[in-house]
Amino acid sequence: MDVVHFTAGTTKNGVLERDFTLGEITGVLWSPAPGTDRAPLVLMGHGGGTHKRWPAMVGRAERLVHDGGFHVAVIDAPGHGGRPRTPYDEQEIAALFAARAAGEPEGPVVVRYNAQLAERAVPEWRATLDALQELPEIGTGGAVGYYGLNMATAIGVPFVADEPRVTAAVFGLHWPDVLAATAKRITVPIEFDMQWDDEHIPRDSALALFDAFASAEKSLHVNAGRHKELPRFEADSAVRFFVRHLGRTVTSQD
Amino acid sequence: MDVVHFTAGTTKNGVLERDFTLGEITGVLWSPAPGTDRAPLVLMGHGGGTHKRWPAMVGRAERLVHDGGFHVAVIDAPGHGGRPRTPYDEQEIAALFAARAAGEPEGPVVVRYNAQLAERAVPEWRATLDALQELPEIGTGGAVGYYGLNMATAIGVPFVADEPRVTAAVFGLHWPDVLAATAKRITVPIEFDMQWDDEHIPRDSALALFDAFASAEKSLHVNAGRHKELPRFEADSAVRFFVRHLGRTVTSQD
Repeated sequence: MDVVHFTAGTTKNGVLERDFTLGEITGVLWSPAPGTDRAPLVLMGHGGGTHKRWPAMVGRAERLVHDGGFHVAVIDAPGHGGRPRTPYDEQEIAALFAARAAGEPEGPVVVRYNAQLAERAVPEWRATLDALQELPEIGTGGAVGYYGLNMATAIGVPFVADEPRVTAAVFGLHWPDVLAATAKRITVPIEFDMQWDDEHIPRDSALALFDAFASAEKSLHVNAGRHKELPRFEADSAVRFFVRHLGRTVTSQD
Repeated sequence: MDVVHFTAGTTKNGVLERDFTLGEITGVLWSPAPGTDRAPLVLMGHGGGTHKRWPAMVGRAERLVHDGGFHVAVIDAPGHGGRPRTPYDEQEIAALFAARAAGEPEGPVVVRYNAQLAERAVPEWRATLDALQELPEIGTGGAVGYYGLNMATAIGVPFVADEPRVTAAVFGLHWPDVLAATAKRITVPIEFDMQWDDEHIPRDSALALFDAFASAEKSLHVNAGRHKELPRFEADSAVRFFVRHLGRTVTSQD
């Protein structure tokens, strides 16, 4: 089994931030200040075309550490964040730009490309979780959550469906075409984000994906606004969701 | 103008709780401990068949005072909480019980009866708001919110639509038949609660009512579960919604 290699680290406002590699995977682990008790781990995925240090990732990670006391790991998806692109990646990215330029729907390209990325990314998440649980401050047997919207929902749904260590997940902003069948196998609590005026994902499609999850505890958060206008307070809501389901280890003032 | 008469008062855990009457209206006002600064006011309505001291009202009021630093006023709806019932009230309550006993949908009776109750209740809310704003600890010009689910949405939608003093509202768990047309006139931020497996309100109906609000800022919170299974954490969410939109006056540990 590959092990996590930390390549750089800083501490800021009580949050320890460490870059790591795991074979070809590049990631960041945000953690409570050293010396705190073992804490739950939240695995967080970025959206299409971005990377592990995208501002939304950094902001969510800091909230999760600060307000929830969690460890938070983000890895670059295949073909993202400087990781090499395959000819297939290049072809699909070109197809996406062509659809945009032509004013055609992005959905068919995104759904197809993200499904292919998920096949490559799911084993990487599994390897990352294996390796992170070898760290003494995380350990095996601790609570694990998954947090990923957009492309990270396309990757996260198949990952969580077959990963019994993940016991709570935040998803959203994707289509049901490929994912609904897999979502039907997910029974852990979920929170699902949807934009009411999404210009890419029709309302019925988003509702159908939410509906597909077999979870007895599931919440849908709909907000007025377009695809990229998800309100920032949904990140706070996700933190509270994980605190409810994974537990809180660090007392904060939130 | 009628004035508020306080008939009883206690203080518990830093929350001042006072019964009041205003003409024929009976109510309770929960407030931060005396001596704190002027604070926003949340008007809160109870559901059908319950009253101002129903446990959900007491629990939500205490959260709103504690975590938001608000004043919270709940009044008994006409025909509720010991207030006299008209022959029409008796007739509709009998129709509701008959529908239940026959296994027929409750919706048609509830929609019709609540619309009639709203005609009586809206002027009472207006008078209550007038009178409460005469109290020095509330005052005119302060921020005002409205929080009401079920029957209190049927009353609250027409109340808020014509009441410019209310600048944020939490609604939910009702049908669009009568309310959607009025909701189209509401532009203040709203949070709307819906149960995904509601045995009384079809999904499309609940979504249609949410859709009707003209508010640029609106959030829909859907949870798995039946009509009466709204999770308690939605009360916490409502508190945070009001803190975002009315402001917070008392620092607490939440």
